[in-house]
Amino acid sequence: MADKSKKPQKLKARLPRGLEDRGPAAISATRQMVEKIREVYERYGFEPVETPAMEYTDALGKFLPDQDRPNEGVFSFQDDDEQWISLRYDLTAPLARYVAENFDSLPKPYRSYRFGYVFRNEKPGPGRFRQFMQFDADTVGSGSAAADAEICMMAADTMEALGIARGQYLVKVNNRKVLDGVLEAIGLGGDENAGRRLTVLRAIDKLDKFAADEVRKLLGPGRWDGGDEGKGDFTEGADLSEADAEIVLAVTQKRDDWREAIAAADTYLAKSEIGQAGVSELEEVAKLVAASGYSADQIRIDPSVVRGLEYYTGPVYEVELLLDTKDEKGRPVRFGSVGGGGRYDGLVSRFRGEPVPATGFSIGVSRLQAALTMLGKLDTRPDFGPVVVTVFDRDRVADYQRMVTQLRNAKIRAELYLGNPKNMGNQLKYADRRNSPCVIIQGSDEKARGEVQIKDLIEGAKAASAIASNQEWRETRPAQFSCPEADLVAKVREVLARHEVAWG
Amino acid sequence: MADKSKKPQKLKARLPRGLEDRGPAAISATRQMVEKIREVYERYGFEPVETPAMEYTDALGKFLPDQDRPNEGVFSFQDDDEQWISLRYDLTAPLARYVAENFDSLPKPYRSYRFGYVFRNEKPGPGRFRQFMQFDADTVGSGSAAADAEICMMAADTMEALGIARGQYLVKVNNRKVLDGVLEAIGLGGDENAGRRLTVLRAIDKLDKFAADEVRKLLGPGRWDGGDEGKGDFTEGADLSEADAEIVLAVTQKRDDWREAIAAADTYLAKSEIGQAGVSELEEVAKLVAASGYSADQIRIDPSVVRGLEYYTGPVYEVELLLDTKDEKGRPVRFGSVGGGGRYDGLVSRFRGEPVPATGFSIGVSRLQAALTMLGKLDTRPDFGPVVVTVFDRDRVADYQRMVTQLRNAKIRAELYLGNPKNMGNQLKYADRRNSPCVIIQGSDEKARGEVQIKDLIEGAKAASAIASNQEWRETRPAQFSCPEADLVAKVREVLARHEVAWG
Repeated sequence: MADKSKKPQKLKARLPRGLEDRGPAAISATRQMVEKIREVYERYGFEPVETPAMEYTDALGKFLPDQDRPNEGVFSFQDDDEQWISLRYDLTAPLARYVAENFDSLPKPYRSYRFGYVFRNEKPGPGRFRQFMQFDADTVGSGSAAADAEICMMAADTMEALGIARGQYLVKVNNRKVLDGVLEAIGLGGDENAGRRLTVLRAIDKLDKFAADEVRKLLGPGRWDGGDEGKGDFTEGADLSEADAEIVLAVTQKRDDWREAIAAADTYLAKSEIGQAGVSELEEVAKLVAASGYSADQIRIDPSVVRGLEYYTGPVYEVELLLDTKDEKGRPVRFGSVGGGGRYDGLVSRFRGEPVPATGFSIGVSRLQAALTMLGKLDTRPDFGPVVVTVFDRDRVADYQRMVTQLRNAKIRAELYLGNPKNMGNQLKYADRRNSPCVIIQGSDEKARGEVQIKDLIEGAKAASAIASNQEWRETRPAQFSCPEADLVAKVREVLARHEVAWG
Repeated sequence: MADKSKKPQKLKARLPRGLEDRGPAAISATRQMVEKIREVYERYGFEPVETPAMEYTDALGKFLPDQDRPNEGVFSFQDDDEQWISLRYDLTAPLARYVAENFDSLPKPYRSYRFGYVFRNEKPGPGRFRQFMQFDADTVGSGSAAADAEICMMAADTMEALGIARGQYLVKVNNRKVLDGVLEAIGLGGDENAGRRLTVLRAIDKLDKFAADEVRKLLGPGRWDGGDEGKGDFTEGADLSEADAEIVLAVTQKRDDWREAIAAADTYLAKSEIGQAGVSELEEVAKLVAASGYSADQIRIDPSVVRGLEYYTGPVYEVELLLDTKDEKGRPVRFGSVGGGGRYDGLVSRFRGEPVPATGFSIGVSRLQAALTMLGKLDTRPDFGPVVVTVFDRDRVADYQRMVTQLRNAKIRAELYLGNPKNMGNQLKYADRRNSPCVIIQGSDEKARGEVQIKDLIEGAKAASAIASNQEWRETRPAQFSCPEADLVAKVREVLARHEVAWG
C-alpha cells in the first residue's frame, strides 16, 4: 500500500452496471425523436420547462412501485447542511415542486413539457437501465376530463408523428377510481386489506399477458408457472371467492367498444360511490376523444390498466406498441408499454395545502427508441464523414491545414489527418473508416505544378467492385484526378454534389 | 411524531442551493447556442458521443482545482457492491474512460464532441451553479501541434458563429511546459517547492486583473488588498527574489505579437529543457493558426494563461470575452473566461498503460449563455402562444374540443381553455397571458347560426392603444369578427398570416 501513490495500478476503464455510452447513430436517433415529440407537444400549446437533475429527497417523495432495495430505488446523498438530496427518478415529482414554488407566476391551467434523464437505483437487466430518458407533458390546474382526454389524443398523435401507424400502437385508458370501486365491491377496502389489494391489482395487470383463466387462478388460490400443480414457481393468489373473482374479471376484461366496457363497470360498481365516479370520468374521456375523431384503434378504454406509480388518483393511461419483432436469436420480442401517465391530484397539493389537480404523461424515450430502432423506423444510416486532407510531406502541415481551413470556410466538413503521416495507406484507411467522400493529396510533384489530387472515395468504391485485377486498378486509377490548387473548393463541391452529400 | 403520518406537514417547495429551473426563454437560448456550436464542430469533422452522468469515482480521478470541502467538489454515493460512484464534474474525464474502454473500435485520431450537464459539489455563488452545461470537443490519439491549433481555430470560429464579433473575444494560448520552465528557471523544481509553485502560478493568473506591479508583490513579499500596508486583506507572496520575479514577469507578460512572446520565453528559458519544449510547441501552434489566416485578434499567444485543472500536460487555451456590460445596478460586469482546455496526455494512459496523447476544449454553455443573453445576442423574444378556444357553454366541451383538434390537425398551435369556464373574462385573461394571437368563441347565438367568433388579440391590442373610451371600444368591438364554423381553420390562418405568426 505504501508505494501505491508512486506506482499507480492501471485503472480499469468500465462503467457501473446499468449505464451506457451512446454513439452517433443513437444520438441522432434521439434527436429525431425529441424533435418530433416536441413538435406535437408545441402544437398542443404546451411550453417547455426544465428542472435540475437533483432535488431535496422529501420534495420528490416516495412514489416508486414496490422496491426490494433499502434505498428505495433512488440515488441519494447528504448535502453540507445534512439535508438529503436525490437524483430525480421521474419528471413528474420535480414538476410538482416547480409548480408549487412558482404557483402565482404561472398561467393556469399550466401546460408544460420537458425531457431529460432520470435515474433509478434499481437492479439493471436487459433493456433496463439506471439512467434513461423521459419526455413528459403535464397540465396542472385543471380537474377537467378534457385535460385527460387531451393528453390521450396527444399521446396518439405523438406515436403517429414518430412513424408508428394506426393499429400498431394503442393508448389505453382506465381510471384508478374504477379499480378502487372493484376493490370496494369485493370487500377489500380498509387498511387491513392493503396486501390483498396489491395482489388483486397485480393479477389484473397480468390480463395483458395471460388468459382470463390464468388470472382467475391469481385472483383465487394462486398459480403454478408450469401450468399444473407443483410445476415451476408458485405465485400466491389473492384468495378471492369465485364470485368476487368473477366481478373483478367482468369489470376489467378487455372490450373493443368503450360503451360495453363502461356498461359492465357501471353494472358491477352500481353500489360503489368511488366506482361510479370512476365510471363517469372514464365515460367523459371516452366521449371527448370520440367527438374529436379518435377511434378505438388509437385510444381505447381498458379497465385492466393499473400503472405502478402510487401517486395517481383518477384517469391513468398507457401507450402500448402492438408490433412484435424478433431478437437477434429469432425469439419474438413484445415491446409492450412505451409510455404512460395519469392524474395526480395530490402531488402539488403536498406543497400547497390546497387542492391542485394535475394530469400528465411520460414517454420512455430510451425504451421507445430501442423499439423504433429495431423496427427500422429511425434513420440511422451513417452520414458521410468529412473530407480528409492527407499529410504527404510532414514539413508542410501548415499548407495542408490551410486547405482544410479553406474547405471549412466554404462550409464543407473537412479535417487534416492528425495521426502519424509516414504511411499514406494508413491515411486512406482512416478516411475509409470515417466514411469520407473524398481525400486530398498534395505531394511534391503536385506542389511543383500548383495542383492537388482529389480521390473520390465513393466513386472509387463503386469502381473497385467493377474492376477485376489489381493491375487494372493501378493503371486506371479510377476516381482520382488533379486540379489547380486554386480550384480545390470548387472541385470538392462538384464531387459532393455528384454524390448528393449535403454541406453548408 | 406519532400522528405525523396521518397529518403530514406541508412540504416546502424549494430547490437545493446552486440549482436552477429553466423556462422557455432560457431553454430556447440554449437550443440556439447548442445548434450553432454543433454546426461548427461537425464542420471540423468531430462526431458526437455521449457518456452517462455518473462514473466510478476512481475512473473520474481527482483533478479539480484546489478544494476547500472534504468531498473534493464531487457528488458521490456508494453502489450496492460498495464501489463509489460520482456524478461527472466535467466531460473530459468520462471521455478518457470511454476512449480507453473502446480503444480498438474507434478511428484514431478520434475527434469527438459532446454536451451535457456536469455537477460540482461546491459552494454556490452568483453565477456559480452546482449543475451547469458544458460543450466539449476533443481529439484523442494525436500528439501533433496541429491538433491543438485546430482546437484553437475551432474555438474562434465557434465564438463568431455565436455572433461574437472579432475583437470581442480572444482565444489565448499558452503551454504548461513554458510555465514549468519558468518555475525551473527560478529554482522552484522538486517536491519540496509544490506550495510555492502554486503561489507563483496563482500570481501569474492575476495578470489578467492586476497591473504588473501588483503581481510583482504577489510574487515577492505579498500584497495588501487596499493598496498600502495594513489596508484590506493580505495575500501571502511567493517570496521570490526581485530577479526571479523579473524572470516570471518577463516571460508571462502579455504581448501583441506572438513572435515577441516566443522570443522572450526562449531567451529566459534557454537553460530549461522543458521550457524549450514548451516554447517550441507554442511556436508551432502560432505558426499553424497564422498560416490558416487567423489573426492576433482571434488567437493570441499569452504565457500568463494557467488553467486550474491539474491534468493538463502541454498547450492550454482559454477563451475570453472582451466585452464589458453593466449589471442591473449599473456596475461594470466583466465576462472573462467562457471556455478553455488543453492537452492532457496522461488521462487516457491511466487506463491503457501506454501513452495516448489527447487535447480538448470545453465551452461553459451556461456561463456563455448568461453573457450572450446580457449582450442581447440571443433571440429571447417570446413566440406567440397557441390559439385559445374558449368554453362558452360547459355542456359543449366536446364541440369546442373538436375545433381545437381541427386547428391542430392543420398544424396550428391551439388549445382548449381547461380552467373553470364560468367567467369569459378569465378565459380572455388567460389567452393574453399565453400571448395567444387569437381566441375562438362560440355562444348559443353563434351556434344557432353555424358560426364562430374570432377575436384577433394582436390587432385588438393595437386598436386598444388607439381607442380612448370604453364606450367606443364596446361599440366598435375592433378586431373581432364572425365566420361560418366550416371556415374556422382558413380564417385563423388568415389572422396568423396577417401577423406573420409561424405555423406548421
